[in-house]
Amino acid sequence: MTYQPLNEVKAVLLARKLGYFTDTETITCREIGDGNLNLVFHITGTDKSIIIKQALPYAKVVGESWPLSLKRATIESQALQIQAKYVPHLVPQVYYHDEQLAVTVMEDLSHLTIARTGFIEGETYPLLSEHIGEFLAKTLFYTSDFGMDTQRKRVLDGNFINPDLCKITEDLVFTDPFADINTNAFEVALRPQVEELWGNEELRLQVAQTKYKFLTCKEALLHGDLHTGSIFASKTETKVIDPEFATYGPMGFDMGQFFANLLLNAISRPYHERTILFEHIEKTWFVFVRIFTDLWKKEGKEAYTTSEKWLENILQSILNDTVLFAGCEVIRRTIGLAHVADLDGIEDEVSKIRAKQHALRCGSALLLSKFPVHISVFKNVLIQTTDEVTA
Amino acid sequence: MTYQPLNEVKAVLLARKLGYFTDTETITCREIGDGNLNLVFHITGTDKSIIIKQALPYAKVVGESWPLSLKRATIESQALQIQAKYVPHLVPQVYYHDEQLAVTVMEDLSHLTIARTGFIEGETYPLLSEHIGEFLAKTLFYTSDFGMDTQRKRVLDGNFINPDLCKITEDLVFTDPFADINTNAFEVALRPQVEELWGNEELRLQVAQTKYKFLTCKEALLHGDLHTGSIFASKTETKVIDPEFATYGPMGFDMGQFFANLLLNAISRPYHERTILFEHIEKTWFVFVRIFTDLWKKEGKEAYTTSEKWLENILQSILNDTVLFAGCEVIRRTIGLAHVADLDGIEDEVSKIRAKQHALRCGSALLLSKFPVHISVFKNVLIQTTDEVTA
Repeated sequence: MTYQPLNEVKAVLLARKLGYFTDTETITCREIGDGNLNLVFHITGTDKSIIIKQALPYAKVVGESWPLSLKRATIESQALQIQAKYVPHLVPQVYYHDEQLAVTVMEDLSHLTIARTGFIEGETYPLLSEHIGEFLAKTLFYTSDFGMDTQRKRVLDGNFINPDLCKITEDLVFTDPFADINTNAFEVALRPQVEELWGNEELRLQVAQTKYKFLTCKEALLHGDLHTGSIFASKTETKVIDPEFATYGPMGFDMGQFFANLLLNAISRPYHERTILFEHIEKTWFVFVRIFTDLWKKEGKEAYTTSEKWLENILQSILNDTVLFAGCEVIRRTIGLAHVADLDGIEDEVSKIRAKQHALRCGSALLLSKFPVHISVFKNVLIQTTDEVTA
Repeated sequence: MTYQPLNEVKAVLLARKLGYFTDTETITCREIGDGNLNLVFHITGTDKSIIIKQALPYAKVVGESWPLSLKRATIESQALQIQAKYVPHLVPQVYYHDEQLAVTVMEDLSHLTIARTGFIEGETYPLLSEHIGEFLAKTLFYTSDFGMDTQRKRVLDGNFINPDLCKITEDLVFTDPFADINTNAFEVALRPQVEELWGNEELRLQVAQTKYKFLTCKEALLHGDLHTGSIFASKTETKVIDPEFATYGPMGFDMGQFFANLLLNAISRPYHERTILFEHIEKTWFVFVRIFTDLWKKEGKEAYTTSEKWLENILQSILNDTVLFAGCEVIRRTIGLAHVADLDGIEDEVSKIRAKQHALRCGSALLLSKFPVHISVFKNVLIQTTDEVTA
């Protein structure tokens, strides 16, 4: 079948054809995609429901003028299946994939809420950090040279080259927000602070080096877009979705994006309601360290994983990178093309600008941290940069 | 045509069939391969000559039991053609390639000498460092994110995954020589010093981290095996051959292997005859820096190549890596599977052992250098570790 975008009628026909529903069963279908790159159909029958996700050959956010390879649908379904080997309870199950149609049929998770939305509404997600720490430790370890034969790892790296989605990250996370580029979007009131940031050579050097790490460092198979909008959660469950940006990259990247989005939510809140987010950041890290260490000791495939000193260095290096990637993410989500509802949704205009100013100071301070860092850097930086407002 | 190893008769038939010689022309053919992995036929007609190189499906050095992908012949011919875009005067010209037969027909360079052999015989090669510095600067810069669009670079990286030849490097350069593995080969007299090296945790940690850089850092398309046996030279010409190990890797790798092999030759000589080798090391570096800097300023494709401070950091990082890779190479060429004629060819047994002891001290000292290093580290380390002998 040649590629054509589905609509609700065609999605239902496909679901019946694939045998998920009988020909006589009454089924309903709704397009629920709120992303920029895909169609997402929620299809419900008598006693079950499924999701059909289809990649579009362009990015909607900038019209049809930004073409994107359909191959990303295959990347996504392959990444989900690799993650399912290591953390089956933390990703949606893939039922079917059609490379030509760029279609994936997968588990319906609509009983869960997107974590970003939940956090904005005050949800606490008591198990989120335990789960994300485990997701990161296992997916990163097992796809790295520590947990996988190096030849297989090189081949897997080659299967996830994913150049056009990487290019989006390169431009929108690491390049455009740090110069006067027309993809950026921010309030006029932020301009003085933004120009100061653009003129800060020390900061731009850190960003250059952080971007270079993303371009050249192939440690493990990343999710590639692990913000709070890529996580479905409830009090008891966590599911990481949408790994279409999956590629080999530096281990700190996913964690950096996750922590940055927790910080952005913290910034959007009154001081006394921020604790839960710092707790999630620190617990994610400690769970990650615990599980990664355990895997290193018990499942290390690399000859030198007998060295505990090396493990210590690796963990420190992941944490340093995490802080740098988080710094870039906090800034780009404030002034770049793709914003977050945590900040943009603040109703009072003055409070919104103040929160965004805080985010910019916070992102800059992360990038200019004194390395090596401790995990408390996230909380400390946020508090210190808050003080600058009140001062 | 399905794969079969050529012999001299079949090589001649192939050369005629491809039209390099007429059917009536008298041609002579000699198999001249001294490597472990390939057949090499030198074919001469009335007024021209060519080389036909064919990959074998196994490594001869350990019998037929070590299978190797024939794809490396294609990797080699593609690498030669990419290098030819940037330094056509420094690589053999490729006339023809057949992927099925794993055969490449290329320029005959038999008027030149292998640099290792020449150095052993006391040749000086006045232009060698100028040429290798240029080779490294141009091939590394233009295939990196600095000199090439990042999407094209990711795709090119994917074309040079080369897992089984990388595995040889991983094992024979970085792993086996640093533990009691049966691929190692060294004289009984070296055993005490070798065991001391195996027991040095600080050194093994450095090796682990250096290996990890080779496994994960994809900066530029490497030659992958740039020792003095991969270089044809004369007083006026230099040609870099045999890039079948080509893969994306850290920029310091090729230079580290080259410098290590110059050091090994220096170690094999009387003190007062070493100067030329230090001169080659330092000149290669300075030429590299000059050309790389020029390209950075004039041909930089990456948004941040406007930063001179970043260039400074990149060059320092390449030099640091070079020293680490050189340290591993010096040691593995002394006690690992693949030795060098510079040391093994020393006739007097006592002198040979002393030279190898010196090489081991020198390799260890490079790995344990105080970073950041200066290019004079190579000369200084060699001299300092010589003194330990005479002391």
